[in-house]
Order: sequence, then structure tokens, then C-alpha cells
Amino acid sequence: MSPNTLPVAVDAMGGDNAPLEIIKGAELALEAGIPVMLVGQPEALSDVEGIPTKFASEVIGMGEDPATAVRKKKDSSLVRSAEAVRDGEAIAMVSAGNTGATMASALLKIGRIRGVSRPAIATPIPVPGRSKPNILLDSGANAECNPEWLVQFAEMGAVYARDRFNTKKPKIGLLSIGEEPSKGSLLVKEAFGLLSDQDWQERCSGEFIGNVEGRDLMNPDVDVVVADGFTGNVALKTLEGTAKSIVTALLDVFSSSPEAEEGAKLLAPSLLPLYETLDPESVGGAILLGIKGVAMVSHGSSKAKAIFNAIATAFELSTDEHVRHLEHVIKR
Amino acid sequence: MSPNTLPVAVDAMGGDNAPLEIIKGAELALEAGIPVMLVGQPEALSDVEGIPTKFASEVIGMGEDPATAVRKKKDSSLVRSAEAVRDGEAIAMVSAGNTGATMASALLKIGRIRGVSRPAIATPIPVPGRSKPNILLDSGANAECNPEWLVQFAEMGAVYARDRFNTKKPKIGLLSIGEEPSKGSLLVKEAFGLLSDQDWQERCSGEFIGNVEGRDLMNPDVDVVVADGFTGNVALKTLEGTAKSIVTALLDVFSSSPEAEEGAKLLAPSLLPLYETLDPESVGGAILLGIKGVAMVSHGSSKAKAIFNAIATAFELSTDEHVRHLEHVIKR
Repeated sequence: MSPNTLPVAVDAMGGDNAPLEIIKGAELALEAGIPVMLVGQPEALSDVEGIPTKFASEVIGMGEDPATAVRKKKDSSLVRSAEAVRDGEAIAMVSAGNTGATMASALLKIGRIRGVSRPAIATPIPVPGRSKPNILLDSGANAECNPEWLVQFAEMGAVYARDRFNTKKPKIGLLSIGEEPSKGSLLVKEAFGLLSDQDWQERCSGEFIGNVEGRDLMNPDVDVVVADGFTGNVALKTLEGTAKSIVTALLDVFSSSPEAEEGAKLLAPSLLPLYETLDPESVGGAILLGIKGVAMVSHGSSKAKAIFNAIATAFELSTDEHVRHLEHVIKR
Repeated sequence: MSPNTLPVAVDAMGGDNAPLEIIKGAELALEAGIPVMLVGQPEALSDVEGIPTKFASEVIGMGEDPATAVRKKKDSSLVRSAEAVRDGEAIAMVSAGNTGATMASALLKIGRIRGVSRPAIATPIPVPGRSKPNILLDSGANAECNPEWLVQFAEMGAVYARDRFNTKKPKIGLLSIGEEPSKGSLLVKEAFGLLSDQDWQERCSGEFIGNVEGRDLMNPDVDVVVADGFTGNVALKTLEGTAKSIVTALLDVFSSSPEAEEGAKLLAPSLLPLYETLDPESVGGAILLGIKGVAMVSHGSSKAKAIFNAIATAFELSTDEHVRHLEHVIKR
């Protein structure tokens, strides 16, 4: 690592476990040799040692309206993190805070890649039995979309799958309610037509495999699932909620009787890899694709490990020039 | 049971396990004292004893276009089942076949309840730790909806929750991507406004609790989740797919080593109730709400137990005059 390498700006105030777990995550990154910078209120960062800090007096809450909050709280940790990227003080940004506000800060301060109509949130979806997750986008940035945007999501998703997960020729599916091109909403039917075009597939080295269904989000036969932000977010939260309900119910069963406890103990070593796959902490968080810089959004419940993973991913994508690859593929 | 009670018409040809498992399901119903009638091709029903049959020469396949298939295959088991209800030969119908074609047959032959704009598919969603499932509608009948239809879905869902699951004052949530009324697609935001009106809530004795998210489908604090058919179907399939992926991965773990096998054996008795809750076979299938008769749609993968449950539910709802309750609530 060159001594001049820029750090990843980490929003110390974002998420349910801020600032403690965020700071711990940054410390893990430092130990791993990744340059970081913590952005937050002075009192929250008073005990931080060995990590550069940038002070911001305000905090944008999880429930605040993104656009309003970003406009009004000019000295918030989120806005200041985005400014650090804009001003060449940081190479990328990471936040576990308000997703909409992260998007708004990044858009306003860092800006959009030329030619991108709407940035999208790309979220990794665990695939049991495989270390590489699938990618779902848009998972919540744009509640209303037009068909052309979905094609751009597909292009950006393909580039991301290659840069982040080393998928050579990403298979891209369109989230619908049946495999036939005639199935789905008007939006999806129009998007199917546009996605069938060869031009964009060649440009991004992706392959459109047609409609996929909700049950295919964890399917290893697809790499990127494209949806409008409303449908994508409903699907993502349904998947997370279902996994959590089942895991919670399982844990209840494991402690329900002495026999069950004994059985759970015997199973534990074999269960661990599955648990790791399903654990949102293991994956490095979502990314805002279409921004002129790397901006990662970690889950609100992120602990140190998830923050570390997000920082490491942000750093790797930045040094690998992911944004330049996106710029190259997007048609102006 | 009066000797004149009409039977439930069961489509013997519908589903992945037809006709064998369908016939077995009908036999279970007969044993339980529920009058049934099997509708299908003569050769498929040649071994049936003690159950009245109605012959139909054609079968509508799972992949066929619903409207076309129903129009062309006039002598199909699905169309004949619907006609049996229309003609007063059967009290209700059950099929594990093509859902769209079941809807089309029911609409065309049995007809819509007066005042209903669009019938919807209402699907039970298991709630771990609770015997009573939630209800999701529309889970796939109408890919494009307008806000007024969503209000009718809510009304019908409330009546159904009361008639089927004895929920006195059903709590109804609108599926969106955030709890605030400002979150979601244009459709959802408009529907939120209409659903906030007291009038329909009083008419159906339901309570609108606002927006819910994908993670709330299995939440015991809601009884009925309302969505357009596209979003509802994506959510349903995502939930089913996630549950199936996790259960499959678990079963793999259980047989992965001698220790794991031993552990699984110890856990089995405690795991069974959870497995039962999540098993689609345990629930009596989905219903088409808004039809002038009870029409149940079982999962394509249904075996005898699921078919029996669907028949029993159809019979109970019919004798309890569920359709009359719906007619009473829907504004003409």
C-alpha cells in the first residue's frame, strides 16, 4: 500500500450500533492495513486513537426524510463523509445509517456517473451452499422506474458482479411472476423487450436469461436479479424476514428440551457454515451503483465485522477502479 | 350432514401429482364425511370407487395461457369443475392445477360477486409459533391494479380472515417499503389514503394498521397483508423460495456426518411442529376471493394431505356461507 493511499471515510454515527461498533470495525480495517477515516461528532470519537477523524456536529436519524435531512443537516456525518470523497480526502464512503440519506448525500455531493439515469442500490443475496452471493438491484432507491432504467440496472449489476465477485459472464434475470415474457406488470413486459437486445449484453459482457421469480433470488443459476426499487425492496425484506423468522424459530427449538440442546450441540459444527452464509454480517453490505465514487450502505444492525467487510469491499472496489469500469460501459 | 348436501368438485387432473394424489385426497375427504366429486378423464378415474365422478376429456396444462386454454378446452376438468358449481351440482371447487386457468374458469362460469371489480388470490402465510397463518392478497391474479381494488382486497381479506380463521377484528397492513405513509410506489401511496378511510373498516370490521414491509408477512401482529398481484406474487414466491432453500440446506446438514445425524435424531421431535408450520401441505391452499362460489387453488406440488385440507376448507367455507358474507360487505 502506498503511503499516499486515500482512506475510506466511515460514518461513525450511522446505524443501530453506532458509534461503538462502527469504530471497532474501522479499527479492524486499520489492523488489516486498510486506511480509514472516521467521520462523526467529536464526543463520539474522543477515545479513537491511530485513526484520522473528521468532525461533524450533526447526525441524520434512521427515520428522517432523506432529502430534507441532507439539505438541512449540512454538518452531518453523512454529508461530511460524501464531501470527503468529493474533495479528494477519501477514496470511498461507508455508512450503516439512513439508506435514503446516504443515497441523497452521495448523489448531491459526489454526483452521478455521466449517462446514468438513476443510481440503484445493489444488495448481495446469500446463496446457501455457495460462497458467492447473488446481486439484487434496485433494492430500494427508486420506487417508480421506467423500463430503460431497468436496462441500466442490468448493465451496472453485470459490471459489479464481475468486479466484486469475479463472475466472468454474469447471468442476469428480470424479477417477474412467471418465466414467460408475457408474464408480469406492464413495466416488466416492456423491460423484457429491451433486455432481450444484444447490444447492452455485449457492452457489459452479461447474459440476459429472461424472467426469474421470487424463488430464484437464492438460485445459483442466476447472478444478478433486476427489479424496480419497490419490488426489489419488498423481495429483499421478505427474504430477510423469512430467514430471520426461521432462524429464530430454530434457535427456540434448540433450547426447548435437554434432548434438543444435546442434539443442537452435536449439530453445531456442521450448522456453522450455513449460519455464516445466511448471516448479513458476513457480506460486505450493499452498494450505490451509478455514483461517481464507491458508496457502501451497511445494514442498520451492522456490528464491527459487517462494517469491516464493507470497508474492505469499498477499498478493494476503489483501488480496482470499479467506477471507471462502470463509466466505460454506460452509454452516454 | 344432510344426505342432500352437495359435494366439493375436485379437479382430478390438476397439479404435479395428479391424478393419484388428488384421488387420495378426495378419499381422505370421503372418510372424514365430506361429500366430494372427482372431475377428470375417464381413464384417470377408472379405479375410483365410492366417489361420484364427472368425466372431462381435456386437461389444461400448468404452462398454458389461462384465457386461451379456458376458451378452447371447453371439456377440460377445470372448466367442468367450475360448471358443476354454476349448475348446482357442486357446492365448491378445488384444483391444484394452473392457477390462472382456475381463476379464468371460475370467473367465466361461476361469475363475480356483484360490486367486486377484480377477484384476488388470497394465500395463507405460515407464522412460526402460531397455528393461525396470515393472509396475503392479491398473491397473483392481477399484475396491474388501481388503488380502489386494493381497498376491495382489504375488505375481502377481512371477511375471509374472520370466516376461515375466526379472527374477530382482522388487522390489515398494506405491503410497502417503509412504514411512513409517504413511502412506496404511487399506487401504494394512493391506496394508503383510501385505506385510511373509516367507512370500509367499519363495514368489514377490519382495522387498517398502515404500511407493513416484506419482513412482516410472517409477523403475528398483522392478519391480512394487501398488495397488487405482481408485488404479492413476488413476495409469496420469495418467501416460499427462502423457506425451501433454508430447509433444504438444513436437511443437507443433518446428514453431513455421523455426529450431525445423531444430533438431528435428538432434535427431530422438537423440530416437527416447526416443520409442520412451514409445510405448505398443512395449510388448505389459496382461495379466489370475489367469485360467486368457493374456489380453492392448491399448490401445484400438493399431495393428498394438502388436497384433503383444501377440500375440507372449501366445504366448511361453503356451508358457513362465506360468499354471502362477502356479498353483504362489498359495496355495490
